[in-house]
Amino acid sequence: MKHCTGIQNLSDADIDAILSRAQTYADQINAGQPITPSLNGRIVMNLFFENSTRTRTSFETAALRLGANVINWDVESSSIKKNESFSDTIQTLAEYDPDAIIIRHSEYGAPDYVASMVKCPVINAGDSWREHPTQALLDAFTIRQAKGRIEGLTIAICGDIAHSRVAASNMALLTRLGAKVRVIAPDFLMPEKPLAAGIEKFTSMDAGLPGCDIVMMLRNQKERMDPSRMPSDIAFFNQYGLTIDRLDLAKPDACVMHPGPMNRGVEIADDVADDPTRSLILKQVRNGVPVRMAVLDLLINR
Amino acid sequence: MKHCTGIQNLSDADIDAILSRAQTYADQINAGQPITPSLNGRIVMNLFFENSTRTRTSFETAALRLGANVINWDVESSSIKKNESFSDTIQTLAEYDPDAIIIRHSEYGAPDYVASMVKCPVINAGDSWREHPTQALLDAFTIRQAKGRIEGLTIAICGDIAHSRVAASNMALLTRLGAKVRVIAPDFLMPEKPLAAGIEKFTSMDAGLPGCDIVMMLRNQKERMDPSRMPSDIAFFNQYGLTIDRLDLAKPDACVMHPGPMNRGVEIADDVADDPTRSLILKQVRNGVPVRMAVLDLLINR
Amino acid sequence: MKHCTGIQNLSDADIDAILSRAQTYADQINAGQPITPSLNGRIVMNLFFENSTRTRTSFETAALRLGANVINWDVESSSIKKNESFSDTIQTLAEYDPDAIIIRHSEYGAPDYVASMVKCPVINAGDSWREHPTQALLDAFTIRQAKGRIEGLTIAICGDIAHSRVAASNMALLTRLGAKVRVIAPDFLMPEKPLAAGIEKFTSMDAGLPGCDIVMMLRNQKERMDPSRMPSDIAFFNQYGLTIDRLDLAKPDACVMHPGPMNRGVEIADDVADDPTRSLILKQVRNGVPVRMAVLDLLINR
Repeated sequence: MKHCTGIQNLSDADIDAILSRAQTYADQINAGQPITPSLNGRIVMNLFFENSTRTRTSFETAALRLGANVINWDVESSSIKKNESFSDTIQTLAEYDPDAIIIRHSEYGAPDYVASMVKCPVINAGDSWREHPTQALLDAFTIRQAKGRIEGLTIAICGDIAHSRVAASNMALLTRLGAKVRVIAPDFLMPEKPLAAGIEKFTSMDAGLPGCDIVMMLRNQKERMDPSRMPSDIAFFNQYGLTIDRLDLAKPDACVMHPGPMNRGVEIADDVADDPTRSLILKQVRNGVPVRMAVLDLLINR
Repeated sequence: MKHCTGIQNLSDADIDAILSRAQTYADQINAGQPITPSLNGRIVMNLFFENSTRTRTSFETAALRLGANVINWDVESSSIKKNESFSDTIQTLAEYDPDAIIIRHSEYGAPDYVASMVKCPVINAGDSWREHPTQALLDAFTIRQAKGRIEGLTIAICGDIAHSRVAASNMALLTRLGAKVRVIAPDFLMPEKPLAAGIEKFTSMDAGLPGCDIVMMLRNQKERMDPSRMPSDIAFFNQYGLTIDRLDLAKPDACVMHPGPMNRGVEIADDVADDPTRSLILKQVRNGVPVRMAVLDLLINR
Repeated sequence: MKHCTGIQNLSDADIDAILSRAQTYADQINAGQPITPSLNGRIVMNLFFENSTRTRTSFETAALRLGANVINWDVESSSIKKNESFSDTIQTLAEYDPDAIIIRHSEYGAPDYVASMVKCPVINAGDSWREHPTQALLDAFTIRQAKGRIEGLTIAICGDIAHSRVAASNMALLTRLGAKVRVIAPDFLMPEKPLAAGIEKFTSMDAGLPGCDIVMMLRNQKERMDPSRMPSDIAFFNQYGLTIDRLDLAKPDACVMHPGPMNRGVEIADDVADDPTRSLILKQVRNGVPVRMAVLDLLINR
């Protein structure tokens, strides 16, 4: 693997290598063991064209844990604001010879475009509503950690599917790893494109949750929705919010996930989010660091 | 000591250890000697929910001098702006396993709340108008450096007492270290709560300054004042601004302090601020780094 | 050399030392060789009072490549916004004992003023429209790389001369290194002060370009122009934009430069900017890192 711009571009061996290396790092972190600074002296550049302190900090932590330096390129004070073209900005940054570029951008395909222009590895930290591959990888890691496997599990992804890069990357990755994936959403939050083969669609939680091992909620991205079709928070919660009662429709040992940040009381109830045994939400956050360490190390030191 | 969230939570032994370790670091810095990188590979997270480049940079310098990495978490681009709860944000950051969290927040008690949620040490870089413990520690360090002792000194804290976390932490610390503390302020800038035992109140500089060894001025925090009660800058300066004439009311060898940033011509005259022998203001800034190094090292390596 | 605040303050030996050391670093970077971390444990402070992610990132990369730590001081959240004087801000930062200060400021002479107040080296990353010495040094480095020499070359600097710190520093440096320098600009973009001895003025590209070895374009800084005298982008491009046809007026092997960020279609045509043999624009960006490494190392380790 030369870049990590989307799940489609990763081979099965890449995915195995990432998840297995992430396990090593996670074990070392949890045991408080020293970690080989395999990126010592390297420079990783964070290019966040959309705000996301959460993901940026996760990548920054991952890079620092491996001994790398991190440059946070600030779009607000950049030449983009002086009308420089995106392409000129990227070509300029490439001349600084960073060892990796991590990019978040609202435009579909921006990471692949950057990858075509630079010599170093490019990691997609989320583009458009198409891909957020490291989120899917950390979700897969978390599911395997909780359930011991992914193959054969039934996983429901619920809520704002249409605007979710997390949903898109997870549908691609989890089906590939052998899970049966369902999506549950009102019509206006279903993607307009047909879903991949094997993915089942449901428009009600009651119909979609029975038999699920994993219930993955998504953040309602109101800033991207057509306001005329968007129900109130209360109406949405009443129909699609994950309550303990709804969770009880799934398997007795079903686990709950959410990529964060959560809108409590909109897509998820407090007691579900904070359930000490059934909620994997903080584990997802925690696993983001070793998974991103694995991606960085495998790309830079390949 | 597990955290440094307020003067009240520090034992006498903690305070001694901090001031003594700070002396070692200050000596090494001033002699240009190498400093043991005792925080090598550690990650310190700066969470500034209120702007303060001055304090943030002082902590960042302290952490870097000890070999740590620093992540500056940016509230402006954070999930807080996507309506994530404060508690979810902190729980998320805690999963990145930082080695220490430095927090500034407008809400009283936010640092203690964070300390209750995370496994790493938490350092209060200023909350509400209640506490700014490292500022009080560096002020005590500076006073001892200038006067050889704190016990038995008479110290006036002057001006905007009501809104000053610096005043609050200094009253707590300096009385504990044996100083006689006075506050001098107009009624509307006196705290509404009664002051601690032993602290004398004055409403005029003429009455309060005689006999003082240290005159500590404060920044007028107009942004927190009731505009209907706030005098003009000139009127305030005429009544409470520290001029050379007023300083001459104190002891002949009295020294002047100010936590900065200064409003020159409002709470302090230029010639006082810049007096090469009587002003300790730049020494306070300078001592901030070794004092914060001491706090970081003692907390992280305890 | 104690500081790098302007070309005038550099001796011939300083310039030689910088360009020669930069060559060593450039060779090491291009060969992927490890670079001696000669600034290990040092702290470099970036003070950008004007936005410039491009220059800031170039300096940050240079410092990190030599093993230094970088503190990006953020003017937006600083005490300057709390009415602290510039001088108090600088005196405060100086007490943190940085190993070098890199400053960009809109006021003429701000870097020299800072240099007079601090003990560490100060590097001017651009002040007013007077000086941007490291840009001129990297331009000289790039010209020598492309042409084997600077002495005897004819170099045209074109466009918004009046507002360009890049033009000012280049005129000073390139004439000193033996080039014949021409400026080409409409009257209202010519500096009001007389130009240095030996610099020829032209108001048309047709008259100024013949015989040139190097054509250096500048960014039109519309934000600094008198709007009543500023032509439209199209009118400017028609008269002063560098097209292939215009470039053909210069020597057959003439090379094109631009400090960036470019306004394509205003001062430069796409095919000129992207010409793989005649455009040195990306090389300028690339050479910025080793030139700034040289300046940092020579100043800090002198």
